[in-house]
Amino acid sequence: MQLLKDRILKDGVVKAGGVLKVDSFLNHQIDVSLYREIGKEFYRRFENMGINKILTIEASGIGIACVTAEAFGDCPVVFAKKAESKNLDGELYTTKVTSFTKGREYNVIVSKKFIGKGDRVLIIDDFLANGCALIGLMELVEQSGAELVGAGIVIEKGFQRGGEIIRQKGIKLESLAIVESMDEENGVVFRN
Amino acid sequence: MQLLKDRILKDGVVKAGGVLKVDSFLNHQIDVSLYREIGKEFYRRFENMGINKILTIEASGIGIACVTAEAFGDCPVVFAKKAESKNLDGELYTTKVTSFTKGREYNVIVSKKFIGKGDRVLIIDDFLANGCALIGLMELVEQSGAELVGAGIVIEKGFQRGGEIIRQKGIKLESLAIVESMDEENGVVFRN
Repeated sequence: MQLLKDRILKDGVVKAGGVLKVDSFLNHQIDVSLYREIGKEFYRRFENMGINKILTIEASGIGIACVTAEAFGDCPVVFAKKAESKNLDGELYTTKVTSFTKGREYNVIVSKKFIGKGDRVLIIDDFLANGCALIGLMELVEQSGAELVGAGIVIEKGFQRGGEIIRQKGIKLESLAIVESMDEENGVVFRN
Repeated sequence: MQLLKDRILKDGVVKAGGVLKVDSFLNHQIDVSLYREIGKEFYRRFENMGINKILTIEASGIGIACVTAEAFGDCPVVFAKKAESKNLDGELYTTKVTSFTKGREYNVIVSKKFIGKGDRVLIIDDFLANGCALIGLMELVEQSGAELVGAGIVIEKGFQRGGEIIRQKGIKLESLAIVESMDEENGVVFRN
């Protein structure tokens, strides 16, 4: 998606340790007009596939999923929650995910009320790197008995293994920008 | 906002301990068409006030803030983050907030890059109860030198003190549904 790649080149910042900061427009400050174009592009790539539910994970996936849902005719969004809160009762799908950016493991949960057999689920997230979060969400979909239609990612770090692992499973994975390599000196190079 | 109150009466569930579960449409599964109506209503209540930035806090505020931002002509959104992550560098505004639902205290941070003098900020959040999260966000705005135009809340628990504390400070606080009382037996009663 050229608009997104151009924005990453203009406003993204590469930091030491494999960190691509896009916090001025994607995941701290948010450009909602960009989100809307992202949503339309996900729709273009997943239309006519019977998607009736969008699943994401807190926190930075939520806004993207909501604006994308508007492109999918106001399809319901479900966001998986990290760790348990007093407000979540009833039966839950649960899995464990290790966070690269936070350096720790946490529980990820979705209420059984909101995904189940008969649902056709699109997973949406902002980043794909080692794939831990996405694999966790896929496990929740599998536990639910719903059909996983595919996964839409805004930025994939193509030099980490997540994308390869997930494509090898036969999942339809659509990343709007795939970073082939990046470093502080030369910036970001995208995969064609 | 009648549409919202009707939805709370229809799909909200009152639980012991002052918990109002609206997770089927507001903060776990999300009805984005309702979010859009909420956004339009916030716009109606805060239009022509020069708002150029919407501030919220992760996680459940983010989707509401993004869809509201669309009603405000794609105004940028900034979401405050809980605790520090490896991806956040540079100078930060910080404060501490105690979570009612999670029963613990955490740091709340916003990068200094994204709010500052000259900004006119609208705070958006899903719930207002004891006011801790909202007061934390107000402190961040104050640290930044930006002008706080007001706060838009989806559901205020009118039987807790947050709303009163904030209105006494002279803040323009607009809650789309104010719960006057609620219990498991009689359900929710709204303030007129």
